[in-house]
Amino acid sequence: MKARPSIPKLAVFPPSAEVDPQGHLFIGGCDTVDLARRYGTPLYVFDEPAIRQKCREFRAEFSRRYPDSHVIYASKAFLNRALATLLKEEGLGLDVVSGGELNCAVSVLFPPSRVYFHGNNKTRDELELALDWHIGRIVVDNFHELDLLGELAGKHGIKQDILFRVTPDVDAHSHRHTTTGVLDSKFGFPISTGQAEEAVRRALAVPNLNPVGLHFHLGSPIYETGVYQLGIEATLRFAAAVRKKLGWEPHEFSAGGGFAVQYTLARPAPPVGDYAEAICRKLAEMTGMLGLKPPRLVVEPGRAIVARAGVALYTVGAVKDIPGVRRYVCIDGGMGDNIRPALYGAEYEALMASKALAMETDTVTIAGRYCESGDILVRDTPLAMAEAGDVLAIPVSGAYCIPMSSNYNSIPRPAIVFVREGKARVVRRRETYDDLLRLDNGKV
Amino acid sequence: MKARPSIPKLAVFPPSAEVDPQGHLFIGGCDTVDLARRYGTPLYVFDEPAIRQKCREFRAEFSRRYPDSHVIYASKAFLNRALATLLKEEGLGLDVVSGGELNCAVSVLFPPSRVYFHGNNKTRDELELALDWHIGRIVVDNFHELDLLGELAGKHGIKQDILFRVTPDVDAHSHRHTTTGVLDSKFGFPISTGQAEEAVRRALAVPNLNPVGLHFHLGSPIYETGVYQLGIEATLRFAAAVRKKLGWEPHEFSAGGGFAVQYTLARPAPPVGDYAEAICRKLAEMTGMLGLKPPRLVVEPGRAIVARAGVALYTVGAVKDIPGVRRYVCIDGGMGDNIRPALYGAEYEALMASKALAMETDTVTIAGRYCESGDILVRDTPLAMAEAGDVLAIPVSGAYCIPMSSNYNSIPRPAIVFVREGKARVVRRRETYDDLLRLDNGKV
Repeated sequence: MKARPSIPKLAVFPPSAEVDPQGHLFIGGCDTVDLARRYGTPLYVFDEPAIRQKCREFRAEFSRRYPDSHVIYASKAFLNRALATLLKEEGLGLDVVSGGELNCAVSVLFPPSRVYFHGNNKTRDELELALDWHIGRIVVDNFHELDLLGELAGKHGIKQDILFRVTPDVDAHSHRHTTTGVLDSKFGFPISTGQAEEAVRRALAVPNLNPVGLHFHLGSPIYETGVYQLGIEATLRFAAAVRKKLGWEPHEFSAGGGFAVQYTLARPAPPVGDYAEAICRKLAEMTGMLGLKPPRLVVEPGRAIVARAGVALYTVGAVKDIPGVRRYVCIDGGMGDNIRPALYGAEYEALMASKALAMETDTVTIAGRYCESGDILVRDTPLAMAEAGDVLAIPVSGAYCIPMSSNYNSIPRPAIVFVREGKARVVRRRETYDDLLRLDNGKV
Repeated sequence: MKARPSIPKLAVFPPSAEVDPQGHLFIGGCDTVDLARRYGTPLYVFDEPAIRQKCREFRAEFSRRYPDSHVIYASKAFLNRALATLLKEEGLGLDVVSGGELNCAVSVLFPPSRVYFHGNNKTRDELELALDWHIGRIVVDNFHELDLLGELAGKHGIKQDILFRVTPDVDAHSHRHTTTGVLDSKFGFPISTGQAEEAVRRALAVPNLNPVGLHFHLGSPIYETGVYQLGIEATLRFAAAVRKKLGWEPHEFSAGGGFAVQYTLARPAPPVGDYAEAICRKLAEMTGMLGLKPPRLVVEPGRAIVARAGVALYTVGAVKDIPGVRRYVCIDGGMGDNIRPALYGAEYEALMASKALAMETDTVTIAGRYCESGDILVRDTPLAMAEAGDVLAIPVSGAYCIPMSSNYNSIPRPAIVFVREGKARVVRRRETYDDLLRLDNGKV
């Protein structure tokens, strides 16, 4: 019999996580030690019901507070064909930021009307691809794009629905790499400089563009629900001013994404309901106060949908003691498959999946296998005594690990499996050494 | 007629860089504006003679000061089949850190005897691959590997030549992510703890291992030649102590790599000859003083061979003014093909390749196209007035950009061309959207 013993770290694993009497960690009814042996490591395991549950939670928490609300998944957090299919089934929309993400959506026959195209520098080819496919919305970021899109939509004989990405000058206090709502940002039309108003004015004069709404994105991850309210207030005050001057008001309002998740026991994140409450209440309050028609509400969770559903599995190799200094537990992955600790200083828990019941009497640093000192996944963390061959699990690995993975050191990228009810299916196979040379034409 | 006008930034481009009267930047006799149109952008252009020249410079500078010296290219800086072939032709050796790099070497029939296998956590499969292929040297990093390699070499009936990676506890003052020679490192056997001596003792007792030498690697990039001398002194004093106790002394000594290059006009790097002088002189001095036999000397440049030979070309899209704050020039690449600015705070120059003769009257920030505020390649840099369609060149992009590149935002990775004498050849083709879905099995 498997059980959910009092292992506090299980709180950051998928809800299906359990441990058998042997001490093996199970996810979605599958023994992770067995998965590691069968598919090799590093292996990214996603609990499929956990993803579906998050989709439903987001839809329910927002729509019960604001019926005309729509959940659009931010593909950049993690995307592949299996996930896109699942999101389609769950009735979510898709936020894409490139022709590649668009192509993935097209490949699973995702309904184009539910797809939003974001990005600060979409290329001509990508915009044409989007128009060809009759994409639902293009979120226009800047004047260059406004002009280009107007021209291309005319050429395609389409009147394209657009949103304006505006920067409300709100600091979300996320990492400086991922704070996007401030005035000094590469993204969007600033409100305070008058450029956002100018964008609306110019778009209204373009026959092939149909401005339907406003969008902001403040950064990610955002642990404070209050910053969304600041963003909503600034943006709706702008909307009211624009209505007065130009006679146009938004039918749609997108509050972006950036919803935080709990990576470590020490730092909880607000539940989805708290974000929904803050956003929906402020939206109703401000539209009422300003006399604006309540717009269709869009939110764009990415990380919050997939992060906790994903668990990375590694095999332990060398264990290195430096007496009086530190013990390094070396694993067979690292910054190539998860660059977040090196890039953002991201923190993770770690659990020995092959002996999850063992006392965590050791304090170790988990080092990757890449030839760089910065390739450390977790510093000074409690762990059971590690030996070569042990399977190590890093929870909350479902977002931004695989998408940012590289072939650094010519190491093939991991396989991805989806698990549910004791069954595993490979949704992306592991790269091979030959895959790494596939695009090379070097003569021998 | 092309000329080399007084454009100071050309100093950090490959030696073949020149500008025609139209203001187009040429590399290896090829018009970069034409290359950008023909092959698309982002495009990584490598000046092939510049790579060969650096190989020859390293070989010459070391061997004229220390005849028994050998230059081993550190593949992690950049590797593909064309480059491996070139390095073979130039008589260099190869430092590999994974089965993938090994497989690339095998694919071009690189002489196995000139290949060194490094890394802090080589897997069993990789060690077997190396033994099967009769690799020249395995640089043993830790006790786990020592035991494993002894077992595998026995199984293969091979007496494998090995070096020991030791940590001499010298701080190279490079970025904290890339400083590797200090005591608290995931790499190597520390000298000060007695573990390096214990490694030699244990290896001498393993019948299938033949200890031939010592290796250290202090970090990268290292701008001070003096730290190599500190490393040599500490390591050779260790060698003398070991000889006294165990009767073994190194026949080979590898001083690692980490040789710096000049990325920006503001920060020059020492010429190759300075590194050679510091290392060779100290090696001769210390072996003489300690009465050690002068060992075969190995150095492992990676970045220093390829960095300056490579130029990244991008196309300008949106140009965004935030009055009184900043002007952003948005390009069609960014952190997906060059994560070094986001990861290490790396700095670069930028030159408008389509109008290299224009006055640089503007100060701009060059933003990538990835959906992240941290995706900034160069901050506050002088540039000619940018317009959509301009081709922008970032020099010194030959090392650690392509190897660490990702498919973040589902954006295909760039094509790579080698240029020489006015001819370009594609050595790696650009990924396609379909390439990105190739490994996916998601049912539709």
